[in-house]
Amino acid sequence: MANQAYENLVKLSRELQLLNDTQALLSWDQEVNLAKKGVAHRAAQVSWLSGEVHNRFTAEKVGDWISEAEQDNSLDEKQRANVRDWRRDYDRETCLPIELVIKLSETKVTAHEAWAEAREKSEFSQFRQPLSELISLCKEQVGYWGYTDNPYDGLLDIYEKGATVEMIDQVFADYKVDLIPLVEKACKQENDSPQALEAEYPIEKQAAFNALVAESIGFDFDAGRIDTAVHPFCTGLGPKDTRLTTRYDISDFRSSLYGVLHETGHGLYDQGLVAEDHGLPCGQAVSLGVHESQSRMWENHVGRSLAFWEKWLPKAAEFFPNLASLTPEEMTRACNQATKPFIRVEADEVTYDLHIILRYEIEKAIFSGDLDLDDIPDAWNQKFEESFGMKVDSFANGCLQDIHWSMGGFGYFPTYSLGNLNASHLVAAARSCEDVRSSMDNGDFAPLLQWMREKIHQPGSLYSPGELIGKAAGSPVTSKAHLDHLTSRYL
Amino acid sequence: MANQAYENLVKLSRELQLLNDTQALLSWDQEVNLAKKGVAHRAAQVSWLSGEVHNRFTAEKVGDWISEAEQDNSLDEKQRANVRDWRRDYDRETCLPIELVIKLSETKVTAHEAWAEAREKSEFSQFRQPLSELISLCKEQVGYWGYTDNPYDGLLDIYEKGATVEMIDQVFADYKVDLIPLVEKACKQENDSPQALEAEYPIEKQAAFNALVAESIGFDFDAGRIDTAVHPFCTGLGPKDTRLTTRYDISDFRSSLYGVLHETGHGLYDQGLVAEDHGLPCGQAVSLGVHESQSRMWENHVGRSLAFWEKWLPKAAEFFPNLASLTPEEMTRACNQATKPFIRVEADEVTYDLHIILRYEIEKAIFSGDLDLDDIPDAWNQKFEESFGMKVDSFANGCLQDIHWSMGGFGYFPTYSLGNLNASHLVAAARSCEDVRSSMDNGDFAPLLQWMREKIHQPGSLYSPGELIGKAAGSPVTSKAHLDHLTSRYL
Repeated sequence: MANQAYENLVKLSRELQLLNDTQALLSWDQEVNLAKKGVAHRAAQVSWLSGEVHNRFTAEKVGDWISEAEQDNSLDEKQRANVRDWRRDYDRETCLPIELVIKLSETKVTAHEAWAEAREKSEFSQFRQPLSELISLCKEQVGYWGYTDNPYDGLLDIYEKGATVEMIDQVFADYKVDLIPLVEKACKQENDSPQALEAEYPIEKQAAFNALVAESIGFDFDAGRIDTAVHPFCTGLGPKDTRLTTRYDISDFRSSLYGVLHETGHGLYDQGLVAEDHGLPCGQAVSLGVHESQSRMWENHVGRSLAFWEKWLPKAAEFFPNLASLTPEEMTRACNQATKPFIRVEADEVTYDLHIILRYEIEKAIFSGDLDLDDIPDAWNQKFEESFGMKVDSFANGCLQDIHWSMGGFGYFPTYSLGNLNASHLVAAARSCEDVRSSMDNGDFAPLLQWMREKIHQPGSLYSPGELIGKAAGSPVTSKAHLDHLTSRYL
Repeated sequence: MANQAYENLVKLSRELQLLNDTQALLSWDQEVNLAKKGVAHRAAQVSWLSGEVHNRFTAEKVGDWISEAEQDNSLDEKQRANVRDWRRDYDRETCLPIELVIKLSETKVTAHEAWAEAREKSEFSQFRQPLSELISLCKEQVGYWGYTDNPYDGLLDIYEKGATVEMIDQVFADYKVDLIPLVEKACKQENDSPQALEAEYPIEKQAAFNALVAESIGFDFDAGRIDTAVHPFCTGLGPKDTRLTTRYDISDFRSSLYGVLHETGHGLYDQGLVAEDHGLPCGQAVSLGVHESQSRMWENHVGRSLAFWEKWLPKAAEFFPNLASLTPEEMTRACNQATKPFIRVEADEVTYDLHIILRYEIEKAIFSGDLDLDDIPDAWNQKFEESFGMKVDSFANGCLQDIHWSMGGFGYFPTYSLGNLNASHLVAAARSCEDVRSSMDNGDFAPLLQWMREKIHQPGSLYSPGELIGKAAGSPVTSKAHLDHLTSRYL
């Protein structure tokens, strides 16, 4: 058979996907169900599976198949894209010396513990040594992978294929200039929460209302579910098994509602991938920045819009009678309030990206060698004051607040803001279709989902994230659409 | 190293246990969580794992290691028992032709569908053909495994190591003679349910009360949990991860309470196994008949006793105020009522074993060749009338009621009754210790658990089921203790 090598790769890739999906279940169950004494055994199971996937995928014959498939002229566009991604993954996994992989994995464990303690005590010095090691190891790793201009490019590329400092600089630089004054103005708006919102919201009612909303915007409960977890997330356990989680605040139903809307956005992307391509690169989501565009879109563009509350407030008031006295306008305002917290995860839509740009600038400077390890806390605090006009009161509220660095996740943060920018850019493009716009404005979001299904979900990883957004929206992403969106919503 | 072969087997066995535990999670999740569209992918995952375990365990080198380990004089008693069980499993798994394994697995799928339809329509003829094939295939299988006197011995041995027709005949023959008149008398007792029990029992209150009871009798919630499932079960997902499930009847809290007590019994056995031996034969439960002794003990001997209700009725009345008007004696009577349903799973403690003995006699006759396939329905109905003094009104209420045969589970049923007999035999022995008896009679079941921990749980699979019971109780199991227990409780 002419394309035997390609067929071998398909078979292997689908088989390894069964193992990856099994690992995803082990992890999901750990977050949602597992009692504390079961954690050690669970770690051994996860580690067995990831070792098995690594060993099978990095076998020499797999490299041979990829080389053969690269020469195979009979492959179509999608098949060629699969080969391209197998090559990328194969090279990334095989080029690292095993000692480096082990050292990195051990250091992450130590660093994570040190970080947790350092944050608890708000002392940077406790985290300094393992952070320093992680940075060195990540630099070494990037050295093996190769990069264009900046070692940081190699890290960005892990989470957002093809992303570079040059490209992100271009987007963030303008964005920051306009965002700082916008945040100032938004935070000066009247931000009192209506008294009618003060009530007790029983968890089972919140869960029932959230499920109704999630189903109405398109989440398929025959192919997924919503559970409770300390840290909300969405994970795919198979082509028809998408698991969302949320957490509840008994005194504020908005916390779980917007959590669910956010995770539903991720879940709709997962459910919108082509099931027949499950286990192949093209059947996968393309990047974190695109994934986040979907979650932010449903959470913010849909869920915090006046059209949403015009449709959903009467139903919400059936679940929570105290809401009956509010108008959709009041409700919408109550869901769009700008404040300036120290902590990124507590930030609203308008201030959020200032937190991200700060982290991006710090990470970039660390990996270009412009920022010394010991200067990180001061650099953080200085940048925070420049952006927010406030002084950070402690390291725990500053450079120690996020878990990412302790896990070696340098290059991850920018994808959050890319998600915001992509969301606004895509929504603006979708709204240029009369049907999408008029339906959205009447609280019917089905045409919007359909647009995303065709242009974002179904292509999977066929194109790079940049190509995908460009093809879908007709132009590359900039901050313009997002700034327009924030301005019209907050001012 | 002298015992390198043994060490290789230990390593392999522990590794394969990681896979088996992962498979157990996949199955648990399927029963408890999985949405319907996810079932096909899940089946592929389970099948991959079981194939992997089979292939790794049946490799030729494993056979060599076992042979070497069998010659190793340096092994202690427990290590020799591990080698004994590896040999048994290895021979069982390697001696069957692959065609037979595939055919059996395919026939089970067909038979299961045919059975479901046959039961629905109450027509035996629909199930006849696949049942006939399954019986032939099981006979063929037993031919490869070998047996002492009767092909049925080979099937009994799957679920209860060492069990034979000769041994079970000896126990059941006497038992049946005494049980039939006892059932008659028990069913003539006054069996009206007190009106105070009629109430609505909110599910979350049932769950909270059940958890309190389960924890109080020793279930460790840091190493396990209770969930909801259509068919209640208990499964171990690791050395510190025991999952129970139950279902709820909103109009009768006893349904979930006794379900939870039953599964907690299985769970306490699971949590009582030696964690360090997890993955080795000796770290496993020895048989279904012993497992069932533990579940029946906590459900019936403990949970339906007067001492239990003397302790728990006041607490139950805090959850369900309608119970406050009942005395512990009334409550106990209400939990021990004999009736004669057609359906096994609806049977009470006293009538239950008549259902089992009937099935045992039919299976035995099928595999000895004394009963023709087409005569099964009549034989069933005739035996039912002899035992219960009632005519079966339909095949659905007769020989089509159970799922077991459709899954090729011939030889499974007797373990339910062995469980009942073992439970009474063990409790009688435990109560011969003054401390166990007086504590039990005062509603403190900790010394009973401690007795079971030492004599039943910790030995794992070191001995055969018969040896284990004999060592623990001081004598082999007979029906005497159980008949005494039923007589004192029901008459």
